[in-house]
Amino acid sequence: MSYPDYSLRELIGFIKAFVDERNWHRFHTPSALALSAAIELGELLELFQWRSEEDVVDALADNKFKESLSQEIADVLIYLLRLTDVAGIDPSAAIIEKLKKNALKYPSKEWRGRAPNKTRTDR
Amino acid sequence: MSYPDYSLRELIGFIKAFVDERNWHRFHTPSALALSAAIELGELLELFQWRSEEDVVDALADNKFKESLSQEIADVLIYLLRLTDVAGIDPSAAIIEKLKKNALKYPSKEWRGRAPNKTRTDR
Amino acid sequence: MSYPDYSLRELIGFIKAFVDERNWHRFHTPSALALSAAIELGELLELFQWRSEEDVVDALADNKFKESLSQEIADVLIYLLRLTDVAGIDPSAAIIEKLKKNALKYPSKEWRGRAPNKTRTDR
Amino acid sequence: MSYPDYSLRELIGFIKAFVDERNWHRFHTPSALALSAAIELGELLELFQWRSEEDVVDALADNKFKESLSQEIADVLIYLLRLTDVAGIDPSAAIIEKLKKNALKYPSKEWRGRAPNKTRTDR
Repeated sequence: MSYPDYSLRELIGFIKAFVDERNWHRFHTPSALALSAAIELGELLELFQWRSEEDVVDALADNKFKESLSQEIADVLIYLLRLTDVAGIDPSAAIIEKLKKNALKYPSKEWRGRAPNKTRTDR
Repeated sequence: MSYPDYSLRELIGFIKAFVDERNWHRFHTPSALALSAAIELGELLELFQWRSEEDVVDALADNKFKESLSQEIADVLIYLLRLTDVAGIDPSAAIIEKLKKNALKYPSKEWRGRAPNKTRTDR
Repeated sequence: MSYPDYSLRELIGFIKAFVDERNWHRFHTPSALALSAAIELGELLELFQWRSEEDVVDALADNKFKESLSQEIADVLIYLLRLTDVAGIDPSAAIIEKLKKNALKYPSKEWRGRAPNKTRTDR
Repeated sequence: MSYPDYSLRELIGFIKAFVDERNWHRFHTPSALALSAAIELGELLELFQWRSEEDVVDALADNKFKESLSQEIADVLIYLLRLTDVAGIDPSAAIIEKLKKNALKYPSKEWRGRAPNKTRTDR
């Protein structure tokens, strides 16, 4: 099915409506939402368990796997967007600001083609 | 600073441009992006470490804490949105579809005010 | 059931025997084991989802919950101990060394009764 | 440095002594310990970020990397063992029981050489 290209604010509104209808506000503390996002990210990781990178590329050709991946990503996104709503954070602004910060931290000239991991001792 | 209310598609475009400029495509396999999202979610959880729910509410009144939370959420969102891009998934559709699925799973009549945890044995 | 107070080396031996019997060595790369530990830790966190600290204390009085917690902890421990085996790390020594390091970092005089979180701005 | 081949019970005793000296008991609720284990597991995963499995094997030949891995594993183990102590769980028994359960779930005849992932649709 196809959907409009919703803005983040609209998506957050849909999530909030879902929560409102079930009166789940008292469960949705920032701590509980962060924990829930972590739990769902664990389920997302499970799709990659015992699979090489090549296996994953193959699996993505399978609609059932892709659908599972899509659902697990959605679960994490829903809790994170809900967390921004509860914490009074604008996720669009947060992403743009972080990209700007990363652009200063990793100037493209210096980092072109180099992995940005902090723990490498071998370069 | 204020930004437009971007759609996920627009944000994914900004993230892709950042990756393009650094030629980081070969690092951005689905497995590596999922792992990176998990690492960043660990950093997000760190903001909640040794804090009660009341402590977190108090901390959110502190701009420095809120800014840290905003950045950690952005880090996870960036990797997840990048993962949808690499895997050919429409995150907006994924969120809407998941909300619909959850609405069937948790009818508001039955679940009003009740926590949706699967592991509860006490209700 | 009651068991002897096994040493870590003995427990690691039991885990290795299990892997040997199934010839799962090629799956047990350090990366795959670390990922598996993270997945199981997600399942462990699920036991705490939507539960206050008081709820958890109550739930621990329930044998079924305690058994679930016990199993989820075991899953993470098994993967981590297996990882030490594969990576040639002595987990006993690693724990002792880390406690010593932490003792220097958090002198008991200074830290008595104070939470050791790095991100606190409010003390 | 070399250490005896301690049992989990002995290691838990060392960890408890560390906590006793700092009077950190009120922070060490089951929820807070599970969260802390997850945070440390995120740091463990960071050592695998942007590294192929071959990169990790190479990195393990580097004492600095191996030492980092050893410390991150220790951090997770410390919190998990502390959690078993607080929750009244015998981790040795939990591991043995779980291995027995897994042995029934994955009979070696049937599973020899096959990855035990639940999400595979391709076998």
